[in-house]
Amino acid sequence: MIILKLGGSVITFKEKPNTANFGAINRLAIEIKRANVKHLVIVHGGGSYGHITAAKYKLHHGFKRPEQLIGIALTQRAMQELNSYIIKALVLKNVPAVPVQPSACTITANGRIKKMNVDPIKQLLKNNIVPVLYGDIVQDLTRGCAILSGDQVVSYLAPKLRAERVILGSDVDGVFKSDPRINPQAELIKEITPKTFKQIFADIGGSTRTDVTGGMLNKIKELIMLSKRGIESEIVNAGKPNIIKRTLLGERGLGTIIHGD
Amino acid sequence: MIILKLGGSVITFKEKPNTANFGAINRLAIEIKRANVKHLVIVHGGGSYGHITAAKYKLHHGFKRPEQLIGIALTQRAMQELNSYIIKALVLKNVPAVPVQPSACTITANGRIKKMNVDPIKQLLKNNIVPVLYGDIVQDLTRGCAILSGDQVVSYLAPKLRAERVILGSDVDGVFKSDPRINPQAELIKEITPKTFKQIFADIGGSTRTDVTGGMLNKIKELIMLSKRGIESEIVNAGKPNIIKRTLLGERGLGTIIHGD
Repeated sequence: MIILKLGGSVITFKEKPNTANFGAINRLAIEIKRANVKHLVIVHGGGSYGHITAAKYKLHHGFKRPEQLIGIALTQRAMQELNSYIIKALVLKNVPAVPVQPSACTITANGRIKKMNVDPIKQLLKNNIVPVLYGDIVQDLTRGCAILSGDQVVSYLAPKLRAERVILGSDVDGVFKSDPRINPQAELIKEITPKTFKQIFADIGGSTRTDVTGGMLNKIKELIMLSKRGIESEIVNAGKPNIIKRTLLGERGLGTIIHGD
Repeated sequence: MIILKLGGSVITFKEKPNTANFGAINRLAIEIKRANVKHLVIVHGGGSYGHITAAKYKLHHGFKRPEQLIGIALTQRAMQELNSYIIKALVLKNVPAVPVQPSACTITANGRIKKMNVDPIKQLLKNNIVPVLYGDIVQDLTRGCAILSGDQVVSYLAPKLRAERVILGSDVDGVFKSDPRINPQAELIKEITPKTFKQIFADIGGSTRTDVTGGMLNKIKELIMLSKRGIESEIVNAGKPNIIKRTLLGERGLGTIIHGD
């Protein structure tokens, strides 16, 4: 089975609050339909839906004041809305996709998943239905609430579901030695392993400031954890046509591969 | 804590596919805000959102043919949409309400809940957030899929969460000896106990034909099960202004009370 992450920066316009990129969403739905993977789990990010509201109410610091309650509700509502657009696009392309709300089945402690009920996801896969999860605000045993990034969902699910491939669709071609949006000469890193990660950690920072889930660095950290468990992943550009389709169909090396030493 | 069920016949126009009754939804959101219950769980039905699609794809008979896959996806999408309207109305009235998707945390066997992860719901209640669940299509170990009625969710949650009150908001004043929409002289039954239920069972039938969850009879069956566990419930008219508010504030006897012998 394959786990496909669709980055929030691809499916939304990240600088415009609550604005979905319907063109990208529909194109990706067609690519997913055409790749026709039998057992597929999709996880998507929040982009301008989750992050802006979550940051406004300081939810990445946990739940401390009653005024934040409505912020939790607003962030969840925004994520539900974005998720409904993904589901709608997939269903219109005849992909039997159903939402799986992470906060309905997950408890975290200190921001990390403590317990997640994956039985419904396993049953959906058995029935050839595509579960679609997303970054979400979840209840946290230590902080009251926590932001559960789509990336953490991916790294948690991959070993649980024995994923053969993990594909992260980003808005860049992969991991660069410097920011390619600032420096057009930035060099793409083709492979990362736990050993080479330390140097890369020194070279790159978070991908954007308003990304309450930590940007590219956290993404790689999650994937390094996966690589240590023997699961290879690849960061590719979901913003460019057909990259996701080709990767789903088995092509490797279109972006940055993260694997064990 | 109180569990409040909002019937699909109240929050949608049941004969019109996918048509929400925004007037009723907004009025109920105001009533819920005004009652200001500290620990509240809301469960809503599907009305014209869930039942019509579910019936079209024969999902109440389980999952048998691949053509039904898209029906499962469509029904879930419809329920997600209806749920988003309820959440939106509540949040706009400053009620910190969040969705809890039953199919993300529940597995059934033969149509009955086998396992449901209620930890996120308990944590939400602890943080004074209002979880909003709904009737849903869930994965079923024996039938492939099953329709999980909002009523079954209520009767499952009430003992798990140690509910002090269970309120079912219907589109009629309670349980009648005959159908009040056909016979205006129909007599309202003020109380039902497991002992008196047999006679009532003989007198009344399902409330509507397209209700794939079984109508009023199934509702009472679920509540009789609850009454045997010592939890009293009341069916009241959520279609009439202020009945839900008054019931949430503690008034009893506005509809039909179901309690133990």
